[in-house]
Amino acid sequence: MLPESVAMTPLATGERKQCTVCIFGTGDFGRSLGLRLLQAGYEVVFGSRDPKNRALLPKGSKVMTHTEAARTAQVIFIAVERDHYEFLTSLTPALEGKVLVDISNNLKRGQFPQSNAEYLSSLVPGASVVKGFNTVSAWALQSGALDASRQVLLCGDDPQAKQAVVNIAHSLGLTAQDRGSLRAAGEVEDIPLQLFPLWRLPLWIATGLIAFFFFYLLIRDVIYAYATDGKDISFRIMISLANKVFPIVSLIMLALCYLPSVLAAILQLYHGTKYRRFPDWLDRWMLCRKQLGLVALALAFLHVLYTLVIPIRYYVRYRIAAGTIAQIKENTTKPFDNTMAWRTDSYYALGMLGFGLYVLLGITSLPSVSNVLNWREFRFIQSKLGHVTLLFCTAHTFLYGWNKFLRASSYKWWTPPGYMLSLVVPCVVLVSRLILIVPCVDNTVTRIRQGWERPEVKGGSQSNGGAQHPLMP
Amino acid sequence: MLPESVAMTPLATGERKQCTVCIFGTGDFGRSLGLRLLQAGYEVVFGSRDPKNRALLPKGSKVMTHTEAARTAQVIFIAVERDHYEFLTSLTPALEGKVLVDISNNLKRGQFPQSNAEYLSSLVPGASVVKGFNTVSAWALQSGALDASRQVLLCGDDPQAKQAVVNIAHSLGLTAQDRGSLRAAGEVEDIPLQLFPLWRLPLWIATGLIAFFFFYLLIRDVIYAYATDGKDISFRIMISLANKVFPIVSLIMLALCYLPSVLAAILQLYHGTKYRRFPDWLDRWMLCRKQLGLVALALAFLHVLYTLVIPIRYYVRYRIAAGTIAQIKENTTKPFDNTMAWRTDSYYALGMLGFGLYVLLGITSLPSVSNVLNWREFRFIQSKLGHVTLLFCTAHTFLYGWNKFLRASSYKWWTPPGYMLSLVVPCVVLVSRLILIVPCVDNTVTRIRQGWERPEVKGGSQSNGGAQHPLMP
Amino acid sequence: MLPESVAMTPLATGERKQCTVCIFGTGDFGRSLGLRLLQAGYEVVFGSRDPKNRALLPKGSKVMTHTEAARTAQVIFIAVERDHYEFLTSLTPALEGKVLVDISNNLKRGQFPQSNAEYLSSLVPGASVVKGFNTVSAWALQSGALDASRQVLLCGDDPQAKQAVVNIAHSLGLTAQDRGSLRAAGEVEDIPLQLFPLWRLPLWIATGLIAFFFFYLLIRDVIYAYATDGKDISFRIMISLANKVFPIVSLIMLALCYLPSVLAAILQLYHGTKYRRFPDWLDRWMLCRKQLGLVALALAFLHVLYTLVIPIRYYVRYRIAAGTIAQIKENTTKPFDNTMAWRTDSYYALGMLGFGLYVLLGITSLPSVSNVLNWREFRFIQSKLGHVTLLFCTAHTFLYGWNKFLRASSYKWWTPPGYMLSLVVPCVVLVSRLILIVPCVDNTVTRIRQGWERPEVKGGSQSNGGAQHPLMP
Repeated sequence: MLPESVAMTPLATGERKQCTVCIFGTGDFGRSLGLRLLQAGYEVVFGSRDPKNRALLPKGSKVMTHTEAARTAQVIFIAVERDHYEFLTSLTPALEGKVLVDISNNLKRGQFPQSNAEYLSSLVPGASVVKGFNTVSAWALQSGALDASRQVLLCGDDPQAKQAVVNIAHSLGLTAQDRGSLRAAGEVEDIPLQLFPLWRLPLWIATGLIAFFFFYLLIRDVIYAYATDGKDISFRIMISLANKVFPIVSLIMLALCYLPSVLAAILQLYHGTKYRRFPDWLDRWMLCRKQLGLVALALAFLHVLYTLVIPIRYYVRYRIAAGTIAQIKENTTKPFDNTMAWRTDSYYALGMLGFGLYVLLGITSLPSVSNVLNWREFRFIQSKLGHVTLLFCTAHTFLYGWNKFLRASSYKWWTPPGYMLSLVVPCVVLVSRLILIVPCVDNTVTRIRQGWERPEVKGGSQSNGGAQHPLMP
Repeated sequence: MLPESVAMTPLATGERKQCTVCIFGTGDFGRSLGLRLLQAGYEVVFGSRDPKNRALLPKGSKVMTHTEAARTAQVIFIAVERDHYEFLTSLTPALEGKVLVDISNNLKRGQFPQSNAEYLSSLVPGASVVKGFNTVSAWALQSGALDASRQVLLCGDDPQAKQAVVNIAHSLGLTAQDRGSLRAAGEVEDIPLQLFPLWRLPLWIATGLIAFFFFYLLIRDVIYAYATDGKDISFRIMISLANKVFPIVSLIMLALCYLPSVLAAILQLYHGTKYRRFPDWLDRWMLCRKQLGLVALALAFLHVLYTLVIPIRYYVRYRIAAGTIAQIKENTTKPFDNTMAWRTDSYYALGMLGFGLYVLLGITSLPSVSNVLNWREFRFIQSKLGHVTLLFCTAHTFLYGWNKFLRASSYKWWTPPGYMLSLVVPCVVLVSRLILIVPCVDNTVTRIRQGWERPEVKGGSQSNGGAQHPLMP
Repeated sequence: MLPESVAMTPLATGERKQCTVCIFGTGDFGRSLGLRLLQAGYEVVFGSRDPKNRALLPKGSKVMTHTEAARTAQVIFIAVERDHYEFLTSLTPALEGKVLVDISNNLKRGQFPQSNAEYLSSLVPGASVVKGFNTVSAWALQSGALDASRQVLLCGDDPQAKQAVVNIAHSLGLTAQDRGSLRAAGEVEDIPLQLFPLWRLPLWIATGLIAFFFFYLLIRDVIYAYATDGKDISFRIMISLANKVFPIVSLIMLALCYLPSVLAAILQLYHGTKYRRFPDWLDRWMLCRKQLGLVALALAFLHVLYTLVIPIRYYVRYRIAAGTIAQIKENTTKPFDNTMAWRTDSYYALGMLGFGLYVLLGITSLPSVSNVLNWREFRFIQSKLGHVTLLFCTAHTFLYGWNKFLRASSYKWWTPPGYMLSLVVPCVVLVSRLILIVPCVDNTVTRIRQGWERPEVKGGSQSNGGAQHPLMP
């Protein structure tokens, strides 16, 4: 097979059935890959130090010595650990002009100064090294389930070599994404080692807020009751207290999703232009808004569960029975309080509608759902509906507070109750958003976002050019 | 670079690293696109009226005058607003033979008589204009998050030009879909302006039904109580009344999902052939069944929340305590009603099982889930399980009604209670479906769907041809 | 059009607009496909026995006799049922060198000894037959909704013919996957006939366990009460009993998800190598773990609903009122039991947190979510979080049991209560997992999984080679 034919798709080559792929290494990944290649109609030749031992190798594959195996195919997968790459130097003549696919992964980031693929390339300079397939798991290949990512990220210096690997990926039912030259190999090798990079900040924020409010409310509710009345109500930690912490943190985090876009608009208004980079912290914040919102949704979900479980709690049943018994004994009947009925029902209704919208926001965050939305629909849901959700949840909290805001007894040990603290950020967001909606402000923001710049901020040649061609400053 | 090489994939060209893309316009989209292209290994040259000003442009890109920039690349993205297209006429010689990608969007549908891409093509007749990338947002490109659609819709008259743009899209990790010739540009430009076209009808139906039942039940429940007993029970609007409206509308809408296929089968039976177009309204109805069902599911979800919140409502707790106190005072003990226990438990159990199936239907409607189902599985879930869900929910409503159907007191002001009205459509669907399942009817429908036609409906040459070759009338 | 040009992508051919596709058969699928092809810019020619009758055919298409139609295009879709293939033998000269796409489906598996595509190929040996498009539904094509699978599975012996069909699939917005030679046609034809193959085992297990525990608890709860006290508490079947069966089966099935990986580790430790196939039953079990977990989640969801509905049940309200009345009459007040409050609240809290994690596991099982996770993230969620979920749910069950384990009255008719039985498998999994985490055991497993083999299990030349090159035994 001539090197030139490599770049052709396997489908388009007349001799497709003879298309052979070689795999060095008979480990887990090598065998899984071999099986899958055989299923896709390739001939598979394993290169092994011990070609006679073909235990566990997929049926239909061949085993040869490394040198023989290398001769049979144009593309060679190096399914060997980096520590053993050195033996490849002895095969240099056989590997001349071949495409070597480096599929290796490291155990941790920055384990070696040089990426595995660049190291391989330096060992066998005559071959074209392509980094790829390291993001696909052996298990996924074998089971055909491909639960985890089915995207193959590729990089390499030789476009024809890359195309050959792209073709193989496609015929295995995988998608391929080009990540540039071999210099990017280090980055590609780091990808499988990442553990939720965008979720870290939101989870830290959530943990911090939960810890703060837990201790704050522990002091105000449990310790205060013990200190002043000597009552031990520590059992309340499990549900009553948790059910205050969750909604408080959830509301704050939901508001934190919408705060950065308010800040961005204010910055743009202040600078009078959109052609100025936002501070780094704002950029990072904006990138993890989705994750912030999903953590907030998870907490709201727990809040709903914790609330609905209230009537089956022993403590609640006990208190209700005690209340009824007390009424009987005193022979009094509390009158029905119409305002109370209105207020509590509105409070619950707003909470449930807010949660319903919250869930809707969560569903549209699913990759497959947001993929079918166009840009305008996505923004409608995430921005318009998001603000309505925030409004509902804030109103829900206000109704919960009701007249307790003014009652002195709410401020135990001079501290405000937790829900009041939770209202600060949402109110800031909602009020700012309200101001930004005022026509004169809104018009300016819109014009700035379309490229207009406030004249005084520009200097020299820009000032006239920019005015005429907003998009070409 | 010769024009012929454009159609080659960037991967396959030997000089890939020198592959240059030009962007006219340094606005938001231009810069985001430039950054992304640089990351994918392209050289990026911005064309600007003021090449000295390169503030905010991504590092590694070049800025030149438009004419110089146009010379460096074969593909030029026109990231300029339509209003400023005219300056391109002065560049006609430099743009000769180039691929111009029109990425512009309008602010509203039908803003201009001619699509932007066709207008561009008329201004620079020597270039090949491709419409595309307008459905991708600058933010998505920049953040790499690609939350919204990652599909690039392309149209254009020159296949090679289109292929060059397809290749660029692929190397940015986007998928491309060909939408035909440049005449389709207007349609492609309208896509980002759409706002849930398939959701409009279901949402209108839901709004209409909710409004109707809200006022109907307001009159029957709240106003009737006020008019006859002078009692103000208006607080019930927030939860009790809403919790009647939601399930009623949800059940009707669920039945409306399954009504069109019943109608279709009846029409096919009536005409004795499937080779007859359904009326337009039926086609439109069938296309938005999924959306109807999802709106119904949202309402059912609210119904579940509103029901589970019942025992923590002030009104309910008050009434229960009052009931217990009354029993004590009268010194009577109500006997345990076994039938009542059976009936209410069955009623709840059916509702919960129905809701469970409902959620299952909703989950399989998610694009990523329905994509992994084959056709038969999808139909099994959506049709078989869907009808079982409808059956459960209808039975749930019947058990709710129980013996109230016959009680005169149910018919306040001669109107039937809301749940009775909600049973009409589901019963029609279930009874028709039952009739269609009867073997002799079922066989006829199956034969018709396989292409058989009742002899009398056909005329002339068709009658024999059709009988022999069912699929070729 | 010359046959050579077929393999070119429609986009890349200069004469793209004249690119013609022929469809034999004007049935449902033929017409839907024709419409879609027209929309994608192809010319469409229908081959029909009766070319004058063009009722219902999409606008813009042509109709000709089969022979004429075959001459216009290189690719011919055979949208005719297998029973009518024989007429194609008469067209042999016209079909010489053409690409015939067999899109047919059978009504059941193994209906014919030979696959439809192979039969077609034997009838028209001069043409290249490609099997494909049979997994796509006519309805999906027509509506453009493509709810069900948008993946076209192809197989065929001629790579150029296959590539031509791949190109058509791509330009219709579908993805294509190559399934090898025409010998695979039978398999491809069976795919649309599959009905949840991976779900069968989990659903059987669930059904079996539900049936067993239903009758077990029916005897212990309902029949025992009737036999010993003569009380009829059969109404409890609907909710109380179901709400014991669901969580029991859910917990067992969740544990069954994690049992196979424990067994696999034990087997690997026992054999001292990973290069030994697992028994078939273990492989099958491992492949359906996701489905096992999702069935368990569905049951847990029902358990949550059934639990939350408790306080609105007639029986529960009656019992609570009766309890309050009894306290009044006896003039006693039960003291508040702090331990009981702690225990029940912890019990509920663990259950709710466990359910929250459970839902999280379910969400990450969605194809679109698991696709964006890398391998390490996916394993973190499914393995680490999965075990935490199991731990929470097991602890929830232990707290439910509490001191009832030691109470003789729990063992009615000498049988242990249901929840005790449900704890067996989870405890086995958790204890084994705990042992496997012990450093010395964990190190051995890790080394084995990295390719190390215990020396005594290997013979001859392997023993030294394997030690040096772990991945190349």
